[in-house]
Amino acid sequence: MHAAMWYAPRDIRWEERPDPTIQLPTDAVVRVVAACVCGSDLWTYRGARPPADPHPIGHEFVGVVEQAGADVTTLRAGDFVISPFSISDGSCRPCRQGVTTSCEQVQWYGGTDPAGRTLDGGQGRYVRVPLADGTLVATPAPPDTAQIPALLALSDVLGTGHHAAVSAGVGPGSTVAVVGDGAVGLCAVLAAVRLGAERVVAFSSHADRQRVATAFGAADIIAERGDDGAAVLRDRLGGRGADAVLECVGNQESMAQALASVRPGGRVGYVGVPLGGAELPIRKMFADNIAVAGGVAPVRPYLPELLTDVLAGNLDASAVFDLQLPMEQVAEAYAAMDERRSIKTLLWP
Amino acid sequence: MHAAMWYAPRDIRWEERPDPTIQLPTDAVVRVVAACVCGSDLWTYRGARPPADPHPIGHEFVGVVEQAGADVTTLRAGDFVISPFSISDGSCRPCRQGVTTSCEQVQWYGGTDPAGRTLDGGQGRYVRVPLADGTLVATPAPPDTAQIPALLALSDVLGTGHHAAVSAGVGPGSTVAVVGDGAVGLCAVLAAVRLGAERVVAFSSHADRQRVATAFGAADIIAERGDDGAAVLRDRLGGRGADAVLECVGNQESMAQALASVRPGGRVGYVGVPLGGAELPIRKMFADNIAVAGGVAPVRPYLPELLTDVLAGNLDASAVFDLQLPMEQVAEAYAAMDERRSIKTLLWP
Repeated sequence: MHAAMWYAPRDIRWEERPDPTIQLPTDAVVRVVAACVCGSDLWTYRGARPPADPHPIGHEFVGVVEQAGADVTTLRAGDFVISPFSISDGSCRPCRQGVTTSCEQVQWYGGTDPAGRTLDGGQGRYVRVPLADGTLVATPAPPDTAQIPALLALSDVLGTGHHAAVSAGVGPGSTVAVVGDGAVGLCAVLAAVRLGAERVVAFSSHADRQRVATAFGAADIIAERGDDGAAVLRDRLGGRGADAVLECVGNQESMAQALASVRPGGRVGYVGVPLGGAELPIRKMFADNIAVAGGVAPVRPYLPELLTDVLAGNLDASAVFDLQLPMEQVAEAYAAMDERRSIKTLLWP
Repeated sequence: MHAAMWYAPRDIRWEERPDPTIQLPTDAVVRVVAACVCGSDLWTYRGARPPADPHPIGHEFVGVVEQAGADVTTLRAGDFVISPFSISDGSCRPCRQGVTTSCEQVQWYGGTDPAGRTLDGGQGRYVRVPLADGTLVATPAPPDTAQIPALLALSDVLGTGHHAAVSAGVGPGSTVAVVGDGAVGLCAVLAAVRLGAERVVAFSSHADRQRVATAFGAADIIAERGDDGAAVLRDRLGGRGADAVLECVGNQESMAQALASVRPGGRVGYVGVPLGGAELPIRKMFADNIAVAGGVAPVRPYLPELLTDVLAGNLDASAVFDLQLPMEQVAEAYAAMDERRSIKTLLWP
């Protein structure tokens, strides 16, 4: 088969790889129906997280089960499945507590399993999925092609935006500000609206992203950033910060903006990978009782609830996919997102 | 009247001060029936928070209203009242949201009001209480003398311990670990038990404090500290950290111990004043979805609920007062706590 491989900063190649096969009785082999590129893939693309060797890349995909291992009980060949971006057994204590990203057997697409096997990435024709029962979620019936982008968004960005909102305690009546207008930030807007937020304000200075934020239900857009942006926000909210701020970037500036935007007693829900080191000013947090919650999103336990809404036509984040390419053009997908020509690029086989 | 004054590190004097009078129609003057020394007073005592000048000190007291200003509507002369350690109006948005410590008119005992008046401290014969309606809570009837220590604990330590537990999300079934065996940590044990925690583990290496922790409902005591302590905790909890960790110290070591003691997806509730700078390791928090919540405790909104239990005889933190002195010996009260001869010292007029 063919799949995307990372070779070096800005060097992604579409190349021949071994056909995945069942290695363990808990595996499934999935034929990919759609995949996409994640903002976190871009950090790898740019070399910010230098791996030792070339490796498969990508961790967001939906597809059809081709073959299921002997111990797989919840899936069978032909099922349409959504994969969350992390692999988990679904049965250990962290999984039962809803923290599948801290699963005792957690594995990551494109990484290495405990036995030293290289795991397939999600940007390829086929993927071997370990711990298939714990990881994959099947739809009740094969979806229409038109639904596939909305289903693909469940693999990471929508679940991650939802996690930001849940972590920040968003509920009916909340005022919410979203820092970050990437696909995750836009999905956080959608998730906050879905959870009943009274008013959602998005920080964005890009017209294309502002349009999506508005379409997803943001009542206000603020183009200013940093303390200026927080000051405009307080002005819009009658002199106060927001009850909940969703930090969807992961650097020092975005976290500072989030903390400047939250009211006393409020919560920052953060899901941006803190690569650049986002220091938390504990004295300010202490003085104003500002909580910081979130982390790498445990998408898997959110899937049944979100999937129900997607299939009912009530939840559709597919507008984040503003570029669609054939999978063999994966290198161009990365370049388009890296150069901000695309919010998020969908790859068709 | 006489009151305690801070002059310099380890120099607390009991001296003549002007008799408090009503300065504003929202004031009340309270005759102190019991006061005590706070762990945070010790930081001032030791010179860690250097103020510019000698100033009144103390912020935990109960007493009887001597006189109420013309605009005070909820209190009258003769009422027995509990003062939370911060002064708040009870009507602004942060107060209505339960964050009275971020009140738009917040004031602090021993500090200075917006007009430049020095505020009385709580360790004295009388105290002028600004914003009396918002700040003070009266008991339905005059309490018995025997109830006074338990009522005094509501002024700060018990409300603060409760805030740690609430911030960490403690509820029925929670496993809880408490870092810090000072009066607040011990009260956090009591608060967690009251909130229905399934199992509370206290870190303490002092026999007198261990005894109080056990009396307050701690099922286990762990004498080890730091990573060793966290390892023993995991061992006691079947290989996992606690759902909720209550950080009641406020330094780098105690926060590190708290973060090492919490399970993936768990919460640290912290109420120790972060004087020494307690850095938060955001990458670890991110990887394991560990939330950090808490801050300076908004005791006032907790008082009605906690007071009901104290008056019903169901909640009694008075065991933290292991030394009781006449108020004029306030300097000895500080020395006893500074030298760890006393967990917490109660002062009688």
